[in-house]
Amino acid sequence: MTEKAVNLVLMGFGNVGKAFVKLLEEKTDHLRESHGLSLFLRAIFKSTGGLFPCAGFKLKDILDDPGADLRVHAFWKQNLSLESIVREVEPGVLVDCTPSNLKTGEPGLTHARLALDSGWHVVTANKGPLAVNFSGLREKASRNRLALKFSGAAAAALPALDVGLCSLAGAEVLAVEGILNGTTNFILTEMGEGRSYSEAVQEARVRGIAEPDPASDVEGWDTAVKLLLIGNAVMGLNLRLSDISVEGIVGLPAELIDRARREGKSVKLLGRIRREQGGITASVAPCVIDHSHPLFGVEGTAKGITYFTDTMGDVTLTGGKSDPRGAAAAVLKDIINIYHP
Amino acid sequence: MTEKAVNLVLMGFGNVGKAFVKLLEEKTDHLRESHGLSLFLRAIFKSTGGLFPCAGFKLKDILDDPGADLRVHAFWKQNLSLESIVREVEPGVLVDCTPSNLKTGEPGLTHARLALDSGWHVVTANKGPLAVNFSGLREKASRNRLALKFSGAAAAALPALDVGLCSLAGAEVLAVEGILNGTTNFILTEMGEGRSYSEAVQEARVRGIAEPDPASDVEGWDTAVKLLLIGNAVMGLNLRLSDISVEGIVGLPAELIDRARREGKSVKLLGRIRREQGGITASVAPCVIDHSHPLFGVEGTAKGITYFTDTMGDVTLTGGKSDPRGAAAAVLKDIINIYHP
Repeated sequence: MTEKAVNLVLMGFGNVGKAFVKLLEEKTDHLRESHGLSLFLRAIFKSTGGLFPCAGFKLKDILDDPGADLRVHAFWKQNLSLESIVREVEPGVLVDCTPSNLKTGEPGLTHARLALDSGWHVVTANKGPLAVNFSGLREKASRNRLALKFSGAAAAALPALDVGLCSLAGAEVLAVEGILNGTTNFILTEMGEGRSYSEAVQEARVRGIAEPDPASDVEGWDTAVKLLLIGNAVMGLNLRLSDISVEGIVGLPAELIDRARREGKSVKLLGRIRREQGGITASVAPCVIDHSHPLFGVEGTAKGITYFTDTMGDVTLTGGKSDPRGAAAAVLKDIINIYHP
Repeated sequence: MTEKAVNLVLMGFGNVGKAFVKLLEEKTDHLRESHGLSLFLRAIFKSTGGLFPCAGFKLKDILDDPGADLRVHAFWKQNLSLESIVREVEPGVLVDCTPSNLKTGEPGLTHARLALDSGWHVVTANKGPLAVNFSGLREKASRNRLALKFSGAAAAALPALDVGLCSLAGAEVLAVEGILNGTTNFILTEMGEGRSYSEAVQEARVRGIAEPDPASDVEGWDTAVKLLLIGNAVMGLNLRLSDISVEGIVGLPAELIDRARREGKSVKLLGRIRREQGGITASVAPCVIDHSHPLFGVEGTAKGITYFTDTMGDVTLTGGKSDPRGAAAAVLKDIINIYHP
């Protein structure tokens, strides 16, 4: 297999960024043997500055042991700018693992624009830029014949976008329903086992599933953004967040869940888009479903999505790791599929 | 969008072939608008000869009404040979919807070889040629830089291959488990509701789910071939049918199913491949699974598959129409993805 060398720039070095670097290290041989790809990490940008690896640098130097920070220090170049990197280095893929800001889209929006203007493909696990300016970024990528991929932002290792874009080609998606947020599904599952809302949230915090402030999850916004990405990418819509009616699970009464359970049913936070009489309705809300619903069995932190189509029937996807490693694996998958479709 | 004209030759005009022609007619506008594709059906081959449409010919002429046969007759050219078509017409896609013969692979094997030797891509819903000579055909396609796609042969509208090939890129598939045959799953579901094996088979016949002779389904061979296709394409194996241990559901005692049900479990005909200590084990057998198994909820004629991976966790696909329209939609999807990846 002929080998292709691809430069990468990584933005953000939190949990997903670190898991991605670890995966690059782990999968070096597999990428070369199975996909003919050699991925070179040319820079890592953190909020405090840029890291530019010198000769002899090894990925595991920044991952493996507690003393890593010191070694990293040797490679650290202050005031390295993204502008200079994307202009001076042979273009490859900018990987964005910075935190999502659903209001401003920053810093991801600036990264993505700069990359796409400089000939770099963009693979992002950051929902922010897409929530704020999906159509602008997609247009910029398409005009410059560059890829803009965001599996890691949509449902991580659950390949909701791939299936919608590739596997349903030729079919019309009439509706989509998804359990797209693992934290809320965990909380609802715990409540189904008899806990109150606040006990369930506390349990999710203790287990490291919910962030200290899980507002974006429990108020439904994380689900809404993922729904927006799927609707816009797969159904060709031009949804904005304000087009989606959003109801979360905050303070959901235990009696509601209890009654559902007694009837053999289950309460799920569903993101839904339907084409109805020429119009589109998009919503996020807790829904009671029974065992005939394809997402009935999706429990705990698992996610799932069902596409309802005209020619292929209903196609449902469930599972996929929801942790940083799963998100990093989705990022790596997107990179591979840019070069090895 | 620039428009690409693609020639098609259709082999076989049974249920799937007819559904495919109907879909071509239905989706003409969608294919042009969403994918920039104009597909031209240049010939249909039936066991009795070849149909070569003349100017003014419309797809719906051969589908729409009871008098269609007469009109078709006007376009019919006897002794039209596949050789002459694939050599004289600008190459496009040969679509094989002829019946599967798992022993000889014919007539599909001859069609596929001829097409690939003449510059035509091959999209097949026929399992036979792939069961008999998977690696030979794949090598021929790869040598000639042509596509060989077979979603319609593997699990029809359930996109088992797409997910395995595209969505799991970069991950290692450690194991796969699938309910890959709708007829046997229907029979097992009926038995779960209290019928005997022979009553359930009879019910499947009455509803048109089972063929008059469902041997290939109930003996497990249909599942085995699909498993072989998935293992070879996704896991990079070189399985032959004789490498798979195959046990069907013929005469399965009702007590077995009854006991499983009393324990809250379920019996499914599972196709399984596992990597174990460097080796591969591949089997088809009825298995008792409980509600923690991702395929537990797959009932009736539905299908499902779970990939167990190293980096993405478990990814499960369920649903997808199992009728001729679903298979035809899978064929159409494969064609689109050749030209619009």
